[in-house]
Amino acid sequence: MTNQGETELKHSLALSHDHMCFLRSLSSRFRPPPSRLCIQACSTNESFQPQRPSLNFSGDNSSTRGWRIMGALLGFGTALAYHDHRCRASQESPPLYTKEEVYSHRSPETGIWVTLGSEVFDVTEFVELHPGGPSKLMLAAGGPLEPFWALYAIHNQPHVYELLAQYKIGELKPEDSAPPTLETSDPYAHDPMRHPALKVNSQRPFNAEPPPELLTENYITPNPIFFTRNHLPVPNLDPDTYRLHIVGPPGGQSLSLSLCDLYMFPKHEVTVTLQCAGNRRSEMTQVKEVRGLEWRTGAISTARWAGARLCDVLAQAGHQLSEKEAHVCFEGLDSDPTGTAYGASIPLARAMDPEAEVLLAYEMNGQPLPRDHGFPVRVVVPGVVGARHVKWLGRVSVEPEESYSHWQRRDYKGFSPSVDWDTVDFDSAPSIQELPIQSAITEPRDGETIESGEVIVKGYAWSGGGRAVIRVDVSLDGGLTWHAADLDAEKQPPRKAWAWRLWQLQASVPAGQKELNIVCKAVDDSYNVQPDTVAPIWNLRGVLSNAWHRVHVHVTS
Amino acid sequence: MTNQGETELKHSLALSHDHMCFLRSLSSRFRPPPSRLCIQACSTNESFQPQRPSLNFSGDNSSTRGWRIMGALLGFGTALAYHDHRCRASQESPPLYTKEEVYSHRSPETGIWVTLGSEVFDVTEFVELHPGGPSKLMLAAGGPLEPFWALYAIHNQPHVYELLAQYKIGELKPEDSAPPTLETSDPYAHDPMRHPALKVNSQRPFNAEPPPELLTENYITPNPIFFTRNHLPVPNLDPDTYRLHIVGPPGGQSLSLSLCDLYMFPKHEVTVTLQCAGNRRSEMTQVKEVRGLEWRTGAISTARWAGARLCDVLAQAGHQLSEKEAHVCFEGLDSDPTGTAYGASIPLARAMDPEAEVLLAYEMNGQPLPRDHGFPVRVVVPGVVGARHVKWLGRVSVEPEESYSHWQRRDYKGFSPSVDWDTVDFDSAPSIQELPIQSAITEPRDGETIESGEVIVKGYAWSGGGRAVIRVDVSLDGGLTWHAADLDAEKQPPRKAWAWRLWQLQASVPAGQKELNIVCKAVDDSYNVQPDTVAPIWNLRGVLSNAWHRVHVHVTS
Repeated sequence: MTNQGETELKHSLALSHDHMCFLRSLSSRFRPPPSRLCIQACSTNESFQPQRPSLNFSGDNSSTRGWRIMGALLGFGTALAYHDHRCRASQESPPLYTKEEVYSHRSPETGIWVTLGSEVFDVTEFVELHPGGPSKLMLAAGGPLEPFWALYAIHNQPHVYELLAQYKIGELKPEDSAPPTLETSDPYAHDPMRHPALKVNSQRPFNAEPPPELLTENYITPNPIFFTRNHLPVPNLDPDTYRLHIVGPPGGQSLSLSLCDLYMFPKHEVTVTLQCAGNRRSEMTQVKEVRGLEWRTGAISTARWAGARLCDVLAQAGHQLSEKEAHVCFEGLDSDPTGTAYGASIPLARAMDPEAEVLLAYEMNGQPLPRDHGFPVRVVVPGVVGARHVKWLGRVSVEPEESYSHWQRRDYKGFSPSVDWDTVDFDSAPSIQELPIQSAITEPRDGETIESGEVIVKGYAWSGGGRAVIRVDVSLDGGLTWHAADLDAEKQPPRKAWAWRLWQLQASVPAGQKELNIVCKAVDDSYNVQPDTVAPIWNLRGVLSNAWHRVHVHVTS
Repeated sequence: MTNQGETELKHSLALSHDHMCFLRSLSSRFRPPPSRLCIQACSTNESFQPQRPSLNFSGDNSSTRGWRIMGALLGFGTALAYHDHRCRASQESPPLYTKEEVYSHRSPETGIWVTLGSEVFDVTEFVELHPGGPSKLMLAAGGPLEPFWALYAIHNQPHVYELLAQYKIGELKPEDSAPPTLETSDPYAHDPMRHPALKVNSQRPFNAEPPPELLTENYITPNPIFFTRNHLPVPNLDPDTYRLHIVGPPGGQSLSLSLCDLYMFPKHEVTVTLQCAGNRRSEMTQVKEVRGLEWRTGAISTARWAGARLCDVLAQAGHQLSEKEAHVCFEGLDSDPTGTAYGASIPLARAMDPEAEVLLAYEMNGQPLPRDHGFPVRVVVPGVVGARHVKWLGRVSVEPEESYSHWQRRDYKGFSPSVDWDTVDFDSAPSIQELPIQSAITEPRDGETIESGEVIVKGYAWSGGGRAVIRVDVSLDGGLTWHAADLDAEKQPPRKAWAWRLWQLQASVPAGQKELNIVCKAVDDSYNVQPDTVAPIWNLRGVLSNAWHRVHVHVTS
């Protein structure tokens, strides 16, 4: 089993693996006080009362305020150190820059500038010295450090501030410190602010993935960089008036559940990897054009989810497992201008199986769900494609047929490479539910230049349906010879391996080698493997892209 | 759901798909009378009493007697017709031949001879005219027709006998009509006789597979040609004294069940495909040597199994599903000279899940288990590798660890291609349980010459764990372009697709084409696919060989 205390700690401070030792020594001193847990009084049976999250964070549209709260989690010691540092800095009279000027400094040629609070730093000389590697610091080039330091709590120490102070070149103009404003006529005007590290594939609706080198830095993906797949504008829901409608069985009674009602069900926690059906679509596009967002390897992330089990809520409404085929249909509260909501369904057998651990989740990594991830309630279906994990959940019903939603019936299905948009018959293929075995390389990156000697290859591997990843093979020669990678030690129960495994391989690069063709492929406990190449699994929607992942790197001697 | 009546009928007369219409008209006239059902008196609650099979067939060592009984199943009309025909034939005074002389006539060059009863026929001229195709008649070349006609009831008609009579050239010498004898000092002396169509990979222990063109002729594989994987000599068990030992839980009571005791449990029937982990190993051998039998595509077959559910029997012994990991260990009554029995185990969670339908089977296609398939009782674990379906079952126990049997711990595991016999660590890989997606082409055969115009490609596809096959892609150009094959219409419940799907593709061969590189690959409902090539999944034991299946054929114009 996962060491839950350690997992939570890793999340709350969002630490890299490399810094775990340091973290352990900090944890007893700087552990944040427990957050306040209820938005309103509920008269409940105390023994049945689940832990409730604070809700003042997720509904917040201001990223500045978000970072401030996240910063507060880092402890009082570092905050005081930062205050001391700012007092010293204020004794000078610095030059002033606009945000645009800072943003224009993002390369060695122009110089690499970053900001912290209102201060501006030229870190061009420091990039190569950055202990976490140049690529991670470059993610912040031309903008604020705070979103990244919030992910890497190791930075919040006096000696780091002192180091940074040496590179100070000025301050932001006062008007550039205010949070940005948004146009209110835009249906996306109320979308939340996002983490700048996210690689945006579409702004409206918002779809974005974390960069590979951050993705596998933590077993649990920090909420701000968890991949986001929205089909519509993010609804702005009031937790006090939110109601979840559960349609009862014929002749039975329907339920209208407030958040507090949902908290009354036994709280169930489970670590689950979500993956979009379109993850790695960009590799299919290279074979032949497809319709869909250009996801690279980052449309996958892992969180610790908590909520009520769907089977408990359905049972409360009087639903039972039936002999006949049936489906649980979900409707989101996000809708297009015609009022059509996002919808999807899963088989009733999965919904009613306690071992399948399907959740109506209200917490993500110990926090209320962020707005981008379904605040206040989303479905989490372990082992199943992301498209069925309906966000901003408004309605649940049990039907004899699958959801009639576009996304269930006319999307998220796989076809033969021979099928095109003129010949496709969506009724001929089943909706994607469990996903196949998948893996990808996150470091080094394609096209990167590495030094000779040793190479460290990192990545993730995951399979649907609770099937555990049992092995990842890595090749440095395009697939001629293979090395078994080291898998992380996270343990999951048999048949319920809902979360990914991170892996790495340390291998020597043969002398004189000018380039490496790095390949990975994973095996799950049903001994399913990934296909060698993309073309034979190409399909018109570019889903289910799980061929061997290939990365080409140059080697300097 | 499968049309059960039709399935049983197809089996009992072992018909090809092509003859279904004919069969339907025959079925009402020639349906065999119900067999006698009990070997001994059991006083039972009548309403709880399962149907019991006749046991006088499977314990039979004589193939002649087997064919006679099978012949009896074909109905009285054809038997009378045959009798008439023999009376006419006996009026001549024919030349006499030995079996060896007949056996030396197996090619167009020598002439192609076959026998029926004591009569010898030269069918050289008829082979190309055979309505079922020359290849099927060639399976019987040099030997008796009876074993094949028993599979293809269509032959048992007066006009077929009349046709055959035209090719009669003589009779077998009287001493060559007696059943063959076996050496009694041989531990395998009491092994049963086998169907001559089986392709034998090893005589002692007996391991054999049906030829591809027979394999997919029927959805239900006829018992005589069901692939056989024995690890040891076949035990000769007396059904009257047979006892199955079920070890009770700590502090509980063990059970010693006679066959009649087992019949007292509710009888459960399920159609299940069994596949050996080594199916298609011969393709791995072509990459690099492996240790194991040279199975081609035939180490897979499908039967309708009936017996007691393992969960019911375990519950009767007081076993419950536990929170802790546990395993159900099986021991066979087959043993090597040191007394070591074949053994294997499956997780307790699967054994106790009624939906997993694990059986203690005593019937195979409506007959008592044949001796080669575990008479009187074997385990059937739907969706799981054949190695766990322990035959001649003697003992069942629930243990905290997997079976310590060689076959559970030191065999039937998958490894990276980089692992060899010097470096292998068997403890590092999980035992194979569920198998991955698989498919193969059964017609045309590799190296065959076909006529231009149209080609019909046939094959099977199956996946482990109850995952349904949803699509089979077939390529005629080595994998550049693909056609979706037609799948048979057999329906299986969601999550319980325990049986294969047969498929076929009818495609036109482009004019002027001299050869075809035919390839197939299947997709299951978790959208797992087969890997493109063999080398990257090569492993030292040659198991889990499920790369695209490739067949090369020549085209004549």
